[in-house]
Amino acid sequence: MRSVVPDYLIEALGDARADTSGALAAYIPELAAADPERLGAVFATVDGEVYGAGDIDTEFTIQSISKPFAYALALADRGFDAVLAKVGVEPSGEAFNQISLESDTGRPLNPMINAGAITAHSLAGSAEMTAAERVQRVVDGLSAFAGRQLTTDTAVCASELEHAHRNLAIAHMLRSHDILTEDPRTVVDGYTRQCSVLVTTRDLAMMAATLANRGINPVSGARVIHEPVVRQVLSVMSTCGMYDAAGDWATQVGIPAKSGVAGGLIGALPGQIGIATFSPRLDRHGNSVRGVSLFERFSSDMGLHVMEVPAAARAVVRSNHVVGAGRDAIRVLELQGGVGFSAAERIVREAVDTAPTEVGVALDLTMVYSIDDVGRRMLLEVVRRLTLDGHEVYLVDPETLVPDPDPGDGGRVTVVKTLEQEQNSSDR
Amino acid sequence: MRSVVPDYLIEALGDARADTSGALAAYIPELAAADPERLGAVFATVDGEVYGAGDIDTEFTIQSISKPFAYALALADRGFDAVLAKVGVEPSGEAFNQISLESDTGRPLNPMINAGAITAHSLAGSAEMTAAERVQRVVDGLSAFAGRQLTTDTAVCASELEHAHRNLAIAHMLRSHDILTEDPRTVVDGYTRQCSVLVTTRDLAMMAATLANRGINPVSGARVIHEPVVRQVLSVMSTCGMYDAAGDWATQVGIPAKSGVAGGLIGALPGQIGIATFSPRLDRHGNSVRGVSLFERFSSDMGLHVMEVPAAARAVVRSNHVVGAGRDAIRVLELQGGVGFSAAERIVREAVDTAPTEVGVALDLTMVYSIDDVGRRMLLEVVRRLTLDGHEVYLVDPETLVPDPDPGDGGRVTVVKTLEQEQNSSDR
Amino acid sequence: MRSVVPDYLIEALGDARADTSGALAAYIPELAAADPERLGAVFATVDGEVYGAGDIDTEFTIQSISKPFAYALALADRGFDAVLAKVGVEPSGEAFNQISLESDTGRPLNPMINAGAITAHSLAGSAEMTAAERVQRVVDGLSAFAGRQLTTDTAVCASELEHAHRNLAIAHMLRSHDILTEDPRTVVDGYTRQCSVLVTTRDLAMMAATLANRGINPVSGARVIHEPVVRQVLSVMSTCGMYDAAGDWATQVGIPAKSGVAGGLIGALPGQIGIATFSPRLDRHGNSVRGVSLFERFSSDMGLHVMEVPAAARAVVRSNHVVGAGRDAIRVLELQGGVGFSAAERIVREAVDTAPTEVGVALDLTMVYSIDDVGRRMLLEVVRRLTLDGHEVYLVDPETLVPDPDPGDGGRVTVVKTLEQEQNSSDR
Amino acid sequence: MRSVVPDYLIEALGDARADTSGALAAYIPELAAADPERLGAVFATVDGEVYGAGDIDTEFTIQSISKPFAYALALADRGFDAVLAKVGVEPSGEAFNQISLESDTGRPLNPMINAGAITAHSLAGSAEMTAAERVQRVVDGLSAFAGRQLTTDTAVCASELEHAHRNLAIAHMLRSHDILTEDPRTVVDGYTRQCSVLVTTRDLAMMAATLANRGINPVSGARVIHEPVVRQVLSVMSTCGMYDAAGDWATQVGIPAKSGVAGGLIGALPGQIGIATFSPRLDRHGNSVRGVSLFERFSSDMGLHVMEVPAAARAVVRSNHVVGAGRDAIRVLELQGGVGFSAAERIVREAVDTAPTEVGVALDLTMVYSIDDVGRRMLLEVVRRLTLDGHEVYLVDPETLVPDPDPGDGGRVTVVKTLEQEQNSSDR
Repeated sequence: MRSVVPDYLIEALGDARADTSGALAAYIPELAAADPERLGAVFATVDGEVYGAGDIDTEFTIQSISKPFAYALALADRGFDAVLAKVGVEPSGEAFNQISLESDTGRPLNPMINAGAITAHSLAGSAEMTAAERVQRVVDGLSAFAGRQLTTDTAVCASELEHAHRNLAIAHMLRSHDILTEDPRTVVDGYTRQCSVLVTTRDLAMMAATLANRGINPVSGARVIHEPVVRQVLSVMSTCGMYDAAGDWATQVGIPAKSGVAGGLIGALPGQIGIATFSPRLDRHGNSVRGVSLFERFSSDMGLHVMEVPAAARAVVRSNHVVGAGRDAIRVLELQGGVGFSAAERIVREAVDTAPTEVGVALDLTMVYSIDDVGRRMLLEVVRRLTLDGHEVYLVDPETLVPDPDPGDGGRVTVVKTLEQEQNSSDR
Repeated sequence: MRSVVPDYLIEALGDARADTSGALAAYIPELAAADPERLGAVFATVDGEVYGAGDIDTEFTIQSISKPFAYALALADRGFDAVLAKVGVEPSGEAFNQISLESDTGRPLNPMINAGAITAHSLAGSAEMTAAERVQRVVDGLSAFAGRQLTTDTAVCASELEHAHRNLAIAHMLRSHDILTEDPRTVVDGYTRQCSVLVTTRDLAMMAATLANRGINPVSGARVIHEPVVRQVLSVMSTCGMYDAAGDWATQVGIPAKSGVAGGLIGALPGQIGIATFSPRLDRHGNSVRGVSLFERFSSDMGLHVMEVPAAARAVVRSNHVVGAGRDAIRVLELQGGVGFSAAERIVREAVDTAPTEVGVALDLTMVYSIDDVGRRMLLEVVRRLTLDGHEVYLVDPETLVPDPDPGDGGRVTVVKTLEQEQNSSDR
Repeated sequence: MRSVVPDYLIEALGDARADTSGALAAYIPELAAADPERLGAVFATVDGEVYGAGDIDTEFTIQSISKPFAYALALADRGFDAVLAKVGVEPSGEAFNQISLESDTGRPLNPMINAGAITAHSLAGSAEMTAAERVQRVVDGLSAFAGRQLTTDTAVCASELEHAHRNLAIAHMLRSHDILTEDPRTVVDGYTRQCSVLVTTRDLAMMAATLANRGINPVSGARVIHEPVVRQVLSVMSTCGMYDAAGDWATQVGIPAKSGVAGGLIGALPGQIGIATFSPRLDRHGNSVRGVSLFERFSSDMGLHVMEVPAAARAVVRSNHVVGAGRDAIRVLELQGGVGFSAAERIVREAVDTAPTEVGVALDLTMVYSIDDVGRRMLLEVVRRLTLDGHEVYLVDPETLVPDPDPGDGGRVTVVKTLEQEQNSSDR
Repeated sequence: MRSVVPDYLIEALGDARADTSGALAAYIPELAAADPERLGAVFATVDGEVYGAGDIDTEFTIQSISKPFAYALALADRGFDAVLAKVGVEPSGEAFNQISLESDTGRPLNPMINAGAITAHSLAGSAEMTAAERVQRVVDGLSAFAGRQLTTDTAVCASELEHAHRNLAIAHMLRSHDILTEDPRTVVDGYTRQCSVLVTTRDLAMMAATLANRGINPVSGARVIHEPVVRQVLSVMSTCGMYDAAGDWATQVGIPAKSGVAGGLIGALPGQIGIATFSPRLDRHGNSVRGVSLFERFSSDMGLHVMEVPAAARAVVRSNHVVGAGRDAIRVLELQGGVGFSAAERIVREAVDTAPTEVGVALDLTMVYSIDDVGRRMLLEVVRRLTLDGHEVYLVDPETLVPDPDPGDGGRVTVVKTLEQEQNSSDR
């Protein structure tokens, strides 16, 4: 059997190919010389599977798609406070090359416009690094997201540096506000190198999948950044990633995304998938024409919208029954599905409503699919309260979803692999 | 046993009470006379459970919190095209009372600023309605979200109308651009009535829960709006709901939200929960001071952030084994958890990788928790492809997650309640 | 002999007629129905001569040309402080219908944009006037400028009121900032009546000539406003009169001016001339196409630019000689030309440099053309100092340019009609 | 006798000294170290007299006061078209260091803001000049205005270059729009040298007087720039010279002016006077506090406002009489005062109204004070028309105000020194 996903991608690319509107970026000869018909799309799942169609191994420069990743590196290397002091998180509603500094502080509005991205570049790595070391830090960081060592396109980089007057203007303006503290030319040089990193559509999808996978590269398994950084980066992408079309994108596509002037476009859907497309012709916002329409299709076809409400789920409490009898009787709450706050709340409610008369109460996690921090904490609080009410509490947890459970302050729990195990032991 | 949730809310309110910063809205006497110490918070789950603490049954005027709901009614009553032609979806990065019209079309940037909200009010109900009928439509619509009949505060309404010069300015400006087509005074009158609808914190939480619950009121079970409208409204709330602090909110709280000048604040986390708080003192953005800090705490404590990546889940394919032997052998893919695109992709992959040699292949949904459209379609495509490869395919679906499965074009599937049922029948 | 001026005007109109670019104002049917070929130009000198060519007696609505005059009335009726508290004097660099309020105070930037003009209208007449009285005050004031009783075009006024949504928006916004303190509708109604006053090109030239003539109507001789008001109005016209083309106009034409949407255009060159043109087709700034080009020609042909440096003048001290001999010898400074600060300074200098040894010193004003306040004061100070140095000082002032001369504090002067008169008297 | 002007200046400075509000420019140490109590004022008349009081020979850096002069040099060296293509003439209503480029062309709004001044600097001298040659051209040009060779303050220049990030930002932005075509750093270097030229208050007054004197230095007699350039520069100073306080200045002072951050302030009143003040403490607009109040006083005390309407002048036609009798009778129009358009118009009118029956008609210029181009042309047209009507026309012009008079096309005129001369000759 052949997977349905590649077939889907091939069909989507075929439909997209008909649209030849838009124009190549023309401000440097190297971008203007790109093959406008190149077209590729890749899905990378958070468990490392990669599906692609079209020109997925053609290298092109990453350009502005480097912005969220460099921002992530700055947050990781300097901490939130240091970065937020220098770059805001507010949408600018303006084109990417507007200066958009806060009028009082000179702080760039967000890290997705050039002013903020130049600042973020300057904050990657430690403050003591030389400019060359900083560039290396950024290239290595991007490589970690991609899962392979990336390189820069020196011809594109040299050409961009010759046309970097607007970025130099921005950098000098930032320097005049002490947002940049280094030589503006050096920072623009480094930022331009960052933008000239060569990537394939496959690389970009893997980079996006690393964001979708809580900061861990799904193939290499390496943790590139921590979860709070991922959340920050995805949030900023969702509000500021698509420049002045932010609202259209948020409503119609609803996937945190970022585009680059060489034709790349990425999207990361938390916990699910990284997506990348490549097609060099750009719309008036500077976003890939076909890339945008492919993302609209992907979002619509596959329900990949952050505001997509999941179908009403089955009850997290699969069953609520009693096994055994007499004083050996145990009230069993058989749980299922993923346990976050909402599910945990339902479990709490079931326990409260049931008001079990049996001494033994078992929470059976055998069919639970996943559990997060708050779910774990609420479950343990249920255990504690049941203990205080005089119950013997058992946690049926064959796969150790809750390692070393500590219900705290008066709570007590016995962990068993199966309920039978418990019953056998109490038979003794 | 007592539920942990009320305890949590009580603790959170206790901590919030210490913050007496901010100031009451003072532009009309009625708001300036509010008791600044009022404080309440309510959680309403998507299955209808309500937890509250503090002043949750005190009535106050809904004010700007009516905006997303009236926008939803306009979308429902007139359709997306008609509404989008008159109100944009772009964040304005400006205070709520800025005019913020697109310079060419005069279209308000989004429905969360007054210009857009006044326009949205004018689009609620049918075009033929009288002004009074439109107000009734809006009040009834808000009531449907809340699950009880709401009324307006005529004193507040009258007082606001006396101070409505800015809104009248906006409405006349909209009229000059033909965004409004009715008498500006009449529309502002209707809009002011909308804003003076009386709600409790409990009502607001239920209204938010209706958005979180795909448009269905969790208690009454009534479908108030359809899912595409919900998605649109939540998207716009997430980018434009908190005025000029949109980026801070998106990164730190990450819950689509809306505040009102009377001190209300709501948040809706899709598929999970509706939250409302009430505390009348406002910060310089016009958002409730304690409300904002409560939401920051809720988001942080309970992982309620739309970009929160769920903990790595267990494999959706719980087991892949063969039952029976010889020509009766059946390859069983026992599935679990929620099946959206990502999960379906893993099932597809398992089917492809396994390349089953057995004639019979069973997809066992017994432990599947939920399944959405794309999951259903992909599962059926797997069935179709397996059929074409010569397999007999069984769907073990005791609770009819996939009603009337039609794998289409050459596909065939037998639905059974249990695998034993199938085996028994084939034994015959 | 026939005057050269009418011939010049006829030639200029003939050349201008060829330009049929631009478009009629179309926002109300009455303006859209104007005859686009109408063309007229009038020069009105500060001593009451009127030269005209073309359609100089066709009536049309004054529209925005009423703005400087209503501003003048407000300044006259309420005083500078009261008006400046509500309307600024800064150029807006924006189109006439932008709101352009100061962000902190809500004060319109200047009285030539609609927001400022509506405010100025509300400040004409006394605060106690009814709306009807205020309109009458404005119409009467405009009539005084024109030198005949003007009336309003009720059809245009009614039609404009139907399309006054933008002005109503502005007025409500002004009301919300307490810049307007009356009902916004009433003020807009009055302002619209002001704009619908019917004038001819001849009227407009006379109104401009009244400004050029220090506030006195050159024909009726009536003082309409005082000089400080004239100076204020001309200054504001020079920086804000031509909307967003203010700088082009200031450099190329250099005549304080104001245009109206019905095709009128006026200019006032202080002390010299009032000019008006009429041609209904407008450029993209809303200024009459042919009017602008006629003014450019007038300014260039006739040196009518406020920054035009007058040709180097002859010495103000025409001669410096001694008449008589011995102790009857008198040092005579024979003065000529206009005596303002610059000329007076030269007279002072001559007196100092000469250091006359004669006891008698005469300042002969016989050939002096004009003298202003500062010239008069400086001349008297020279007299005083000469007295203190021991001189007998004579003022030869046959036409009483300096009535009742009082050199103050120790100064003394004898006024004579002719020097001979003095000598005769001293012969006695 | 002692002149009244120095006494006036001493009194004015004495009054101004009490105001110690404002603050020194602090962005470089050299300016922050200035003596804040320095105070000086100079009047320089268009015929070369200089009056001063206070610290009038203290050197300080010219800073932004160089802007109008460098703009003048650019206009002189490259022509109006070349300069206007790169720098606009519209007021910006913004602070001096705003970028304020036209959104479409990138053209700076005017030459008084830094972006325009940097561009103007780059246009001084020929396009072929090296950067050093261009700086020399500018310093020499400023020196010609001042009438002595000026030098630069190398310490201030070096310090400013270290803090030139904002100007570098502006220059790179201009380079990105191809408004600048040279290396941005080199241009900023040259511009900074221009701003560091050392001047005294006396120098500044002489520079302003050169503008007031139609481009001719009143002392050296050298023509520095031609009159159209003067008119352009004065116009731009009047609308854009005082940054965001342009309207206040235009109404209250009414003298084309420019301020510098070192405390200098100049004003030039066409045909009359150049004024300079020096006092280093600045207001929030960056203008010298005491300088502004001195100019307000000078304008008010001495009627030095461009919109000041001159006192009603005597009739330009001093007498209209007949000398001689019979066929020798000559109609004499004895003229006086300055003859521009307005005066010439009155002469024309007198000639028309008189409709002389005498064959001889004499225009007597003996008492005419000045005459400009349009006056000369109109006078000759009168001559021509009188000739065509059959008259013999005489021009009594003892001081050759109208050299080589050519009435053109059928006109004829006899020039005489005195009317007696004519009568004598005709007696022959």
